Amino acid sequence: MKIELYFITGNKGKFLEAYNVLRKYDIDLKQLNVRKIEIQSEDLKEIAIEAVRHVYSRIRKPVIVEDAGLFIKALNGFPGPYSSYVFKTIGINGILKLMENIEDRRAEFKSVVALMYPSIGIKVFEGIVRGVISNAPKGNKGFGFDPIFIPDGSEKTFAEMSVEEKNMYSHRAKAFRALGEWIKENLKYLLKY
Amino acid sequence: MKIELYFITGNKGKFLEAYNVLRKYDIDLKQLNVRKIEIQSEDLKEIAIEAVRHVYSRIRKPVIVEDAGLFIKALNGFPGPYSSYVFKTIGINGILKLMENIEDRRAEFKSVVALMYPSIGIKVFEGIVRGVISNAPKGNKGFGFDPIFIPDGSEKTFAEMSVEEKNMYSHRAKAFRALGEWIKENLKYLLKY
Repeated sequence: MKIELYFITGNKGKFLEAYNVLRKYDIDLKQLNVRKIEIQSEDLKEIAIEAVRHVYSRIRKPVIVEDAGLFIKALNGFPGPYSSYVFKTIGINGILKLMENIEDRRAEFKSVVALMYPSIGIKVFEGIVRGVISNAPKGNKGFGFDPIFIPDGSEKTFAEMSVEEKNMYSHRAKAFRALGEWIKENLKYLLKY
Repeated sequence: MKIELYFITGNKGKFLEAYNVLRKYDIDLKQLNVRKIEIQSEDLKEIAIEAVRHVYSRIRKPVIVEDAGLFIKALNGFPGPYSSYVFKTIGINGILKLMENIEDRRAEFKSVVALMYPSIGIKVFEGIVRGVISNAPKGNKGFGFDPIFIPDGSEKTFAEMSVEEKNMYSHRAKAFRALGEWIKENLKYLLKY
């Protein structure tokens, strides 16, 4: 028997990455695009927990939300939790301009998945990938800042990788694998609810 | 008789500007630094309304919150509602770097004050000031992006002005004056609660 999970997101790229990981577990992942309340915080965990709590109060089904961000060391963590707003306004060119003449290119992508499961409560799973900001955008796959992020261990940007290849490295895949493993271990309790 | 209002903010500069406006009305403004939940939104109004609703549910007294942001035209409104996070991370130098070689320097500061008054509900007051982003920071008064914002009609940045002078132009003073006027007009109802 499969566990049914609703993933609250309007981002098809995110959904595909999560789907690609979770189909290897007994999870039937469904995309649901309802309004999600996100608080302002520098802590992705706090944002994800509040968001899943709020969504669950309305839909009352096993539900997950994911919050992610790009944290650039030389920019004190900017754009961090506000990555999608920053992408929409100053975009990739804005980030590259801010990184001009900066030698330290280190950055991290972080992902937090918050699950709310009836009669169990909230569980949080995290994933992180270290890498560098490239000097110029490359590739047209993925979304957001993928064209300028090169994960450690690769010479390609995320935007030059297929979903499968990106998932070998990505913060999001790590968080979703942790979710998958937890569900596998707890399947007998979960199926009871 | 004076109306007692609690202004929820940890920012002393904001409090002083508001105090300077509201002391001309029959308002006894008090600073209260409690945790305020702010949602992520591109609409300051929505952020302020949710924040005041949440704070009121805990303190149950006449309360105001203010949300403000710097919206730069050539940067698609960036940093907007996330101005304080952007100030903390990339700062004034980050904004000036993003504005290098950009001719259109137009920007707006916006302020939204949300009041929650028992037995009346939520009222919202807005203020806006148009101006330009300077080429270099000037002045050491005020806070945040004040050193690089020159309001239309002046040649000084906000950071080169005293509180009184800044309040002749500022978005925040306009929003707080609108609040003051509204309270003056409705004083007899407000005193009854």
